[in-house]
Amino acid sequence: MAGRLDLKGGRVELAHGGGGRAMERLIDELFRAAFANDWLAGGDDAARFEVPGGSMVMATDSHVVSPLFFPGGDIGSLAVHGTLNDVAMGGGQPRYLAAGFVLEEGFPLAELQRIVASMADASREAGVPVVAGDTKVVEAGQGDGVYITTTGVGTVLPGVAVGPERVRPGDRILVSGPLGDHGVAILSQREDIGFGTELRSDTAALHGLVAAMAEAVPDTHCLRDPTRGGLAAVLNEVAHASGTGMRIREADLPVREAVRAACEFLGLDPLNSANEGRLVAFCPPGSSDELLAAMRAHPLGWEAADIGEAVADERGFVQMETAFGGNRLVDWLYGEQLPRIC
Amino acid sequence: MAGRLDLKGGRVELAHGGGGRAMERLIDELFRAAFANDWLAGGDDAARFEVPGGSMVMATDSHVVSPLFFPGGDIGSLAVHGTLNDVAMGGGQPRYLAAGFVLEEGFPLAELQRIVASMADASREAGVPVVAGDTKVVEAGQGDGVYITTTGVGTVLPGVAVGPERVRPGDRILVSGPLGDHGVAILSQREDIGFGTELRSDTAALHGLVAAMAEAVPDTHCLRDPTRGGLAAVLNEVAHASGTGMRIREADLPVREAVRAACEFLGLDPLNSANEGRLVAFCPPGSSDELLAAMRAHPLGWEAADIGEAVADERGFVQMETAFGGNRLVDWLYGEQLPRIC
Repeated sequence: MAGRLDLKGGRVELAHGGGGRAMERLIDELFRAAFANDWLAGGDDAARFEVPGGSMVMATDSHVVSPLFFPGGDIGSLAVHGTLNDVAMGGGQPRYLAAGFVLEEGFPLAELQRIVASMADASREAGVPVVAGDTKVVEAGQGDGVYITTTGVGTVLPGVAVGPERVRPGDRILVSGPLGDHGVAILSQREDIGFGTELRSDTAALHGLVAAMAEAVPDTHCLRDPTRGGLAAVLNEVAHASGTGMRIREADLPVREAVRAACEFLGLDPLNSANEGRLVAFCPPGSSDELLAAMRAHPLGWEAADIGEAVADERGFVQMETAFGGNRLVDWLYGEQLPRIC
Repeated sequence: MAGRLDLKGGRVELAHGGGGRAMERLIDELFRAAFANDWLAGGDDAARFEVPGGSMVMATDSHVVSPLFFPGGDIGSLAVHGTLNDVAMGGGQPRYLAAGFVLEEGFPLAELQRIVASMADASREAGVPVVAGDTKVVEAGQGDGVYITTTGVGTVLPGVAVGPERVRPGDRILVSGPLGDHGVAILSQREDIGFGTELRSDTAALHGLVAAMAEAVPDTHCLRDPTRGGLAAVLNEVAHASGTGMRIREADLPVREAVRAACEFLGLDPLNSANEGRLVAFCPPGSSDELLAAMRAHPLGWEAADIGEAVADERGFVQMETAFGGNRLVDWLYGEQLPRIC
C-alpha cells in the first residue's frame, strides 16, 4: 500500500471505484473522515438505525455498469438487486426502494424504457416497490447513457445482528454459489468474446435466501455480498475488521468451468471477479451444517459450499490452500480487474 | 403540449430534466407506467409509507448542478438540502441520509474533499447524519466531475398529512421568501456575469421551518419546494393534481431587486427560476394569518408573503394579476430556462 491519499495534488482514478484498497482508502480518508459518525465507521454497505417501533436498515448504491445490457441482466435489474442485497447483508428485509436517474442527452427512449421495465420486473419479483424517484439530464458527452442510484430501506430480521466485528476464530465461511459469474459475463460482453459457452451474470435478489438463513441460524455472525473486488475483497475486509485471519481451500471453491476457462484466457482470477447474486456467510462452527442445509434448500443457494474458516491471526492474512497442496496469500487488489463492473 | 412521448424513435432531451412539461411527460409515460404503484402515482417528490411503529417519508434526488461551486453553496450542500427539503415537503422530519457518488476519473481530490466537507457541514447543521454511501468512478469524459444522489428518510410530523390533492378553492398560497435566487445565482456564475451586486443561492434546509409551521397549523394542506421550473411549475402541478385554478398577484411576489434586474437582462422570469431554500404552502383561508406569522418568526421565513389563492377552475389555469392591473396566464415551461440547475 503506497502511503496515504494525496489530497493536495491527487486526482480521482478508476481504481478508486474498484472495490479494492484504493477505494477503501478514498472512503476512509476522505468520506469517513468528513462525515465522522458511527454508522460509516462500521464500514458496512448498509446502516442500521432505530426508529420509533424498531430497527431499520438503509443502503444506497450507484450503478454505472458498462455495457448497460449484458447476459443475464441489465443496469435496471442490477440496480434493484444490488441495493436489495446491501440491505439484506445488513440483516434487513428490504421494504421500499427509491431510484435516481442521471440520463445523457440523446439516449434512446426505447432503451430507457427497456431498462425501466426490467427494474420494474425485478422490483415486483422481489416484492419491494420503487416508491420515490428523481430524473436529471446531462448534456451529451457528460454521461454514458444512464446511471442509476438506488436506495433501499428495510426492517431488521428479528434476532439478527450481523457485522464483521462479530467474526471469531473458528467461524466457518460459506458461499452461496459459484464465484465470478457477473464479472466474467460483463467482460465477455465488453470484449465481445463468446468462449463457445454462455456466461451469464448471477444478478439476483438475495433477501429471500437471507430470510431462510436467519430462520435456520439467527446467530449467523456476518453476511457480505462479494461484488466489486470479489471474494478476495470480502475476506480481506472482514479479516481487517474482525482482527482474525482467514483460511480457505481452493478445491472447495465453487467456480463454473466456463468461468474458470474464461478467467484463464483473460488472465483474471475468479477470486477477484465480481458477483451480484452471491453471498458469503460467517457462522459459528456448531451451526454451519444447519446453515449450509438451509442455503442448499433455497433456489439461490443450492450450490452453496463451505470453503474454509476464520483463524486466529492478528495480521489478518487471508490464505488459501491450493489445489496442489501449497499455500498462497489471497491479496486484496489495489483497484478492480476492470472498471464499471456494476 | 405536443402529443405523447415518442418511445420508438425518441431520445432523451435536456428538457426532460428541466422540471417542466417534458419532464412530467417522461416521468408519467415511462417511469410511472412501468412501476405502476400508488406512491409514484401521487406525483410527490417524497413517498410516505407505514412501518412497524409509525409512518415514514422517503425521498431521493440526483444532483448534477454545474458549476459545482456557486455563490452561496456547492453541489455538496445542495445535495443535502435538496433531499432534506423533499422529505420535509412530504410532511416528514428527516432523520437519516444516504449518498451515492459518481466521480469522473481525473477529478481533483482536493475539490472532492471541499465538496464532501460542505456536505458534512450541511448534514451536521441540519442534524441529519449521512449513514450510508457508495462511490463509483467513470472514465474521463463520461461524467462531469461529481454527480451526487442523496436519499433521505424521515418520520412523519404528528397530525400532518400534506398533498396536492388536499388543496381546495379558497386556500391561501404562501411563499417563504424571495423567489428565483438560486437559478439566477447559478446562471450568473455560469455566464460569469456579476451584475454589480452579489447574487447568492438561497440553498438551505427547510425542515426546521416546516416543523414550526406544522406546530402552528397542522392542517396545512400542501407543501412544495419550487426547485426546477420555479414557482410556475409548482402552481401548475398543484392546480393539475387538485383540480383547482390558482390566482396570484404580481405585486405581492417577493423578488429581490438584483434578481429582478438580472432576469430582465437575461430574458428570464423569476416565476420560472429555481429556488433551493424556499417553500410554497397551501392552507385553509382561516389559518393563513397564523401560518404566515409562524413562517415570519423563523429565520428562513422572515420574508414570507401571501401571494394569492386557489380558485374554482376545472381547467386548472394559473393566472396572475400583473402589477399594472392586467391578467396573464402563468405557463408551465416545456423544459427549463437552463439545464443542470440542481
